[in-house]
Amino acid sequence: MSSSAALNPPRRILMGPGPSDTHPRVLAALGAPTVGHLDPYFLQVMNDTQQMLRQVFRTKNELTLAVSGTGSAGMEAAVVNLVEPGDPMLVCVNGVFGGRMVDVATRAGAQVSKIEVPFGETFDPAQVAEAVAKHQPKLVGIVHAETSTGARQPLEEISKIVHNAGALLVADTVTSLGGLPVETDGWELDAVYSGTQKCLSCPPGLAPVTFGPRALAKIDARKTKVASWYLDMTMVRNYWGQDRAYHHTAPINMNYALREALQLVMEEGLENRWARHLRNHLALKAGLQALGLKYAVAEGKQLPMLNAVLIPAGVDDLKVRSQLLNEFGIEIGGGLGPMKGKTWRIGLMGETSSPRNVLTLLAALDRCLADQGVKFSPGSGVVAANAEYARQAAQ
Amino acid sequence: MSSSAALNPPRRILMGPGPSDTHPRVLAALGAPTVGHLDPYFLQVMNDTQQMLRQVFRTKNELTLAVSGTGSAGMEAAVVNLVEPGDPMLVCVNGVFGGRMVDVATRAGAQVSKIEVPFGETFDPAQVAEAVAKHQPKLVGIVHAETSTGARQPLEEISKIVHNAGALLVADTVTSLGGLPVETDGWELDAVYSGTQKCLSCPPGLAPVTFGPRALAKIDARKTKVASWYLDMTMVRNYWGQDRAYHHTAPINMNYALREALQLVMEEGLENRWARHLRNHLALKAGLQALGLKYAVAEGKQLPMLNAVLIPAGVDDLKVRSQLLNEFGIEIGGGLGPMKGKTWRIGLMGETSSPRNVLTLLAALDRCLADQGVKFSPGSGVVAANAEYARQAAQ
Repeated sequence: MSSSAALNPPRRILMGPGPSDTHPRVLAALGAPTVGHLDPYFLQVMNDTQQMLRQVFRTKNELTLAVSGTGSAGMEAAVVNLVEPGDPMLVCVNGVFGGRMVDVATRAGAQVSKIEVPFGETFDPAQVAEAVAKHQPKLVGIVHAETSTGARQPLEEISKIVHNAGALLVADTVTSLGGLPVETDGWELDAVYSGTQKCLSCPPGLAPVTFGPRALAKIDARKTKVASWYLDMTMVRNYWGQDRAYHHTAPINMNYALREALQLVMEEGLENRWARHLRNHLALKAGLQALGLKYAVAEGKQLPMLNAVLIPAGVDDLKVRSQLLNEFGIEIGGGLGPMKGKTWRIGLMGETSSPRNVLTLLAALDRCLADQGVKFSPGSGVVAANAEYARQAAQ
Repeated sequence: MSSSAALNPPRRILMGPGPSDTHPRVLAALGAPTVGHLDPYFLQVMNDTQQMLRQVFRTKNELTLAVSGTGSAGMEAAVVNLVEPGDPMLVCVNGVFGGRMVDVATRAGAQVSKIEVPFGETFDPAQVAEAVAKHQPKLVGIVHAETSTGARQPLEEISKIVHNAGALLVADTVTSLGGLPVETDGWELDAVYSGTQKCLSCPPGLAPVTFGPRALAKIDARKTKVASWYLDMTMVRNYWGQDRAYHHTAPINMNYALREALQLVMEEGLENRWARHLRNHLALKAGLQALGLKYAVAEGKQLPMLNAVLIPAGVDDLKVRSQLLNEFGIEIGGGLGPMKGKTWRIGLMGETSSPRNVLTLLAALDRCLADQGVKFSPGSGVVAANAEYARQAAQ
């Protein structure tokens, strides 16, 4: 298009690592008339959003809100509010987003230690216990669902280890929230952040966050100002709380959209939504494996909403992704960091997680893999996925 | 509404300090189908946006883009990229937003000096020259259009003073961009930031910024990492530049909306838009003065898009604003900081700046002021505004 052409985005099926497909009701909410950020109507929208975010985060935390930035701003908000210059922090790195947290925390002045496992792996609680004993951190950061690798990190036991050592735990749930259990109160997570464009199926632009009682105590006891004015929860919470004190102008229409997206989660039921993500993941996996594709993450550690598979030898990564996009309107993601060129990341997040999309992708992959000279039995992916759906239906 | 009620925002005329009214085409763009942040279509949207932002900022600066946050994130982006810990910075404070810049810069580690004039006043170049000579700053920050007071600060002469002293100038144009001349290249401004929800009439959520050659040289010569990962232009520019390197997931639909809002600016013509803001300001001013209201800022220093008037003695600030909102659907703003309870801030920004809105507000104020027992000649505001429009038409 030329710069004067009317806006007319192509219709895509968003099966990458996010954004995911957006429900028509969420798009309609985005386009609802703008009101002021102190309008009584908007304050009610904020209240509704907080109340529903608490349900999605499974928490009673009062300080639960949407940061006015994307998921990475949520990460920065969680970290900069909980560290002061010189504070020891331990970050568990098993992918790009753990690495990002190291960078964010270092810039915020934390004394950062890290433990690492290879991309695609997860941490054993014993390894975290050892590092906590060694480094004596005040804060530990870990990623629940590594968007760069598709690995799922259990958090409950690690949370106990961290608390027994007197530290706080911050968890990245950008990719898991709404698609997998995130038990903020049940697992005693101290600060949790997410993004809107993954399993909540709202366009990117906001970052749900929640801070528990230990995190609030830490914030209240700070001796230094939070490094970021924009993300300073000591001020932001006065706008989202009873005072409604002006801090910055909230992204009104994005908050409309988040409220509508959360409303859709409530209508479906959070547990039903988790179950749907799992069902479609199992069907996709059956189909991909029938096509001869192998997962990058071991069985039992795979995320249902993000399926990272190894690109078969001799297959042209970019050609396949371009063909999927240009012929079928399907976006899948490439690998990030050391997995660039080695994996495809296939998202089944939120609205995207449906049998229609699973079967459509498998049918489209048939054609792309055949064009790449891969040997497989055409149609076997769709057949295997349908067999998995039939197995589920018979249960 | 209950939290399960369908979203149905009231229709408002947004005559506060922002957000301003949104054009239906911008709302439609917001609700267009989401695509991925690396989709070829979205990359073109970014190119279009950058090209139009350069025209609105009147610059050839390559590093011109929309930060993924609101105007305050734009301020933080401009400041944190240009200061390193210990750098001396001078901030000119004549309102809330100058004060905010002091806070942002202090958190970023700058050694901040400030000069102040009372809220509603502007700075004389000689005063800036004296402070620059005394404090030897590397960076000077100033607000072009103080949203908290309605005062307009000339920048050209101050820019020369700052550059003659070897420093860089960062300018806040959150409220002026698109409604008043902002000559980034003509005035040699080194870093300029704005918001989308003022004279560009796009909902809040993005912050247009531009960095000139001196600012780029400073960024390239940094010895320390930028304090904020999220706002670090050394990385963000690789996504908005040729590399398209993933940094964070851009707010897709908000960027659609900004592109459409900029398209509307292009169709109107930037100079025509400035002239429209001035015409409606003059008519509103004639009307408000006929009702006996006085401007908080001296003649010649008033912003056309933000009319701060003194609340007459004995008039109940909140009652009048509630009545305007509840009976007429009109939002005007209250005072900020020391002007709280003392002024109303009446915005005529972007789409809001129209004869219809000027006359409607004046008619509604008739009723509210009468209810407050103010003595004035009913209808005189509308008559005076119409006379001003007639005078303009006759020129």
